[in-house]
Amino acid sequence: MADTLFNLPRFAFDVADERVARAAWSRLTEPADVVAGALVDALGAGPALEWLADALQAPSDAARELSRLELGQKMARSLAGGHDSRPVSPAGVLMAGVRRWAQRLQSLDPVRDLEALDRLDGTLLVPGDPGWPTGLADLGPAAPMALWVRGQADLAGLARRSVSLVGSRASTGYGEAVTRDLAAGLSERRFTIASGGAYGIDAAAHRATLTVRGSTIVLLASGVDRLYPAANTKFMEAAFADGAVVSEVPPGSVPFRQRFLARNRVIAALGRATVVVEAARRSGALSTANHATALARPVGAVPGPVTSMASTGCHDLLRSGAAVCVTDAAEAAELAGSLTTDAAPEQVTEPRPGDDLDPTARRVLDALPVRQAAPIESVATVAGLSIPEVRAKLGGLLITGLAEKEAGRWRRALQGTKK
Amino acid sequence: MADTLFNLPRFAFDVADERVARAAWSRLTEPADVVAGALVDALGAGPALEWLADALQAPSDAARELSRLELGQKMARSLAGGHDSRPVSPAGVLMAGVRRWAQRLQSLDPVRDLEALDRLDGTLLVPGDPGWPTGLADLGPAAPMALWVRGQADLAGLARRSVSLVGSRASTGYGEAVTRDLAAGLSERRFTIASGGAYGIDAAAHRATLTVRGSTIVLLASGVDRLYPAANTKFMEAAFADGAVVSEVPPGSVPFRQRFLARNRVIAALGRATVVVEAARRSGALSTANHATALARPVGAVPGPVTSMASTGCHDLLRSGAAVCVTDAAEAAELAGSLTTDAAPEQVTEPRPGDDLDPTARRVLDALPVRQAAPIESVATVAGLSIPEVRAKLGGLLITGLAEKEAGRWRRALQGTKK
Repeated sequence: MADTLFNLPRFAFDVADERVARAAWSRLTEPADVVAGALVDALGAGPALEWLADALQAPSDAARELSRLELGQKMARSLAGGHDSRPVSPAGVLMAGVRRWAQRLQSLDPVRDLEALDRLDGTLLVPGDPGWPTGLADLGPAAPMALWVRGQADLAGLARRSVSLVGSRASTGYGEAVTRDLAAGLSERRFTIASGGAYGIDAAAHRATLTVRGSTIVLLASGVDRLYPAANTKFMEAAFADGAVVSEVPPGSVPFRQRFLARNRVIAALGRATVVVEAARRSGALSTANHATALARPVGAVPGPVTSMASTGCHDLLRSGAAVCVTDAAEAAELAGSLTTDAAPEQVTEPRPGDDLDPTARRVLDALPVRQAAPIESVATVAGLSIPEVRAKLGGLLITGLAEKEAGRWRRALQGTKK
Repeated sequence: MADTLFNLPRFAFDVADERVARAAWSRLTEPADVVAGALVDALGAGPALEWLADALQAPSDAARELSRLELGQKMARSLAGGHDSRPVSPAGVLMAGVRRWAQRLQSLDPVRDLEALDRLDGTLLVPGDPGWPTGLADLGPAAPMALWVRGQADLAGLARRSVSLVGSRASTGYGEAVTRDLAAGLSERRFTIASGGAYGIDAAAHRATLTVRGSTIVLLASGVDRLYPAANTKFMEAAFADGAVVSEVPPGSVPFRQRFLARNRVIAALGRATVVVEAARRSGALSTANHATALARPVGAVPGPVTSMASTGCHDLLRSGAAVCVTDAAEAAELAGSLTTDAAPEQVTEPRPGDDLDPTARRVLDALPVRQAAPIESVATVAGLSIPEVRAKLGGLLITGLAEKEAGRWRRALQGTKK
């Protein structure tokens, strides 16, 4: 760690406390700030704060420290892409971050934020905690700085067997009914249901899960003190008992559009699979599906009427091959579960008499008259088969009760199949 | 050709006339008799009839002729599979065929069958005719011996740009409505619609095509004198004008189950693509889709409500990856047409103000207060961006009318986007 940076007590809180330092970064940055993520990954959350303070006091010294960070030229380019299309040097990217983060340094008070969480009976999770969901590591430098959690703090346990069930706010009765079936069926299979707490499909997923006493994770784009939207407060509070309400932004934060979009990557990372129930072409649920794909998690899409605008996004996912067609909870479970225990049952159909006949026997059966019995030669002519072939098959049809013999002539038995 | 077999005038018709000889084979065999197909391919239709007569008189001589046929051990095994699971020699397979075909030799009268077709103003098409659809060659030895056609005899022209639109007889109002849209939209794009003339989806496809004065091909499992089912006679007769009613079995033939199933391979081979609109798990439409896959033709499936049994077969096709999701005529056309002229248009969505903003500008816009204007420093803190970044973006937002400035303070313009 960067010991030389620890010489100034410039923060009114203990930067060496990982939880406090991560809470601070959670306040300083917007979600998915990969520059901050890379910096914190490289130095540790506390030293990164010290480095930030140094960088503000002596930018040239701080820039020299850059050589110790593993922010290569290639990463810098990908980092720069999100903010500006001009290629930038790693130093440029990082110093732009410094100016960005500095904007919130003055009002920074992570201890106050943690106290606010305390008053909500909440828990701060940071990477390395037993309750930290290991799947978030797949997000790399875009992983949340910390998770502000109300309810069950063992998110790792909740997410071990989980499906993210997402969809449009502008849902239809059809979509909500399918969501309820999926959420209930997955809960019965002991899957946790993660979603975004929004109107429409999200709400249907959370509510149906709670109805069958399953576990649900509500991922908020606002702070966990603001159960947004207000109309959904009731089920969010109900989720505390066996699940959790979670945010990566500190208490007091309001939900911006960018925070909604960034939040979707966390929903995708918390599910073993993501299933989109209904989504119009502009639905945020599609961004969740894209994040899941980027994380190499399976994506499912529920089809619907092609006449329903609410299903167009799902159909696009199916058309492009980005999603697997999911029509029931068993298929969703197969997507998210282990191959051995969660494989969807082979779809079976009601057997009909004559189903197990080989094609030749089938032809003989089809050639048998229904009313007037006929001689074997006539059956052979109608069937286009030789007499020995017909004779060989008639025996089997007689035994299985599909054909009957009458004075040396043959006809179909009454209980036989119809075309 | 096998000249030595031409020495006996054992047929009451001219076996050297390709049309007559193929009409005869069409009567002697059931559809998709690959042994007969391979024999006729190897010898020609007329010589194959002569060979059959020889084989009945002197089986051992005929068996010796086998060495001249290109029925290898491998093909014999695949041929045998359909009729019997025991491995059989090529000779065994062929002699079983001889016994099968012989059953109908006595009543064979292709001239009478052709006269019956004549009385219907019909046309017999055989391979090599200009009107013979070249796509049928992909069926190999399972290709029809001949096609009995009423209506437009240029099937090659009709099938050059064609979609096979198939589905359940037990269709829903939803499926029929989608079928009508697809058939009408494809007809407007000058595609011919091929289907099986059955109740439900088939009928909806034919009828909608005729309504927009498009071309449709009705593939019957019965002879073309029997427009089956009788309730569909009216549209079948209407199809004669710009399309055709087609069968591979001669006039007088009744529709067996095996003929329905065999007929599906011809529907699949006549379409540049096959689209299944609605299909329960046991629908014959799925067999058409399987045939299309076997012929390497693209297959589309129309999704529907997961609660509808009539769509389960389509969803199975989507799940297995056997079919592409098709939701409108443009997508069906893309499947069947040329890549350049028939590509489905990129699906576009209504643009919203602020859509073209880069992420940083978007964050600035989101951070602007809606009512009370705020100083630039406060906007930067809310956005988590540096003051220079915010200043740079505010200019653009002002010009595009998304932000407004009031006494040095900033807020969102009234006509700006809402979240």
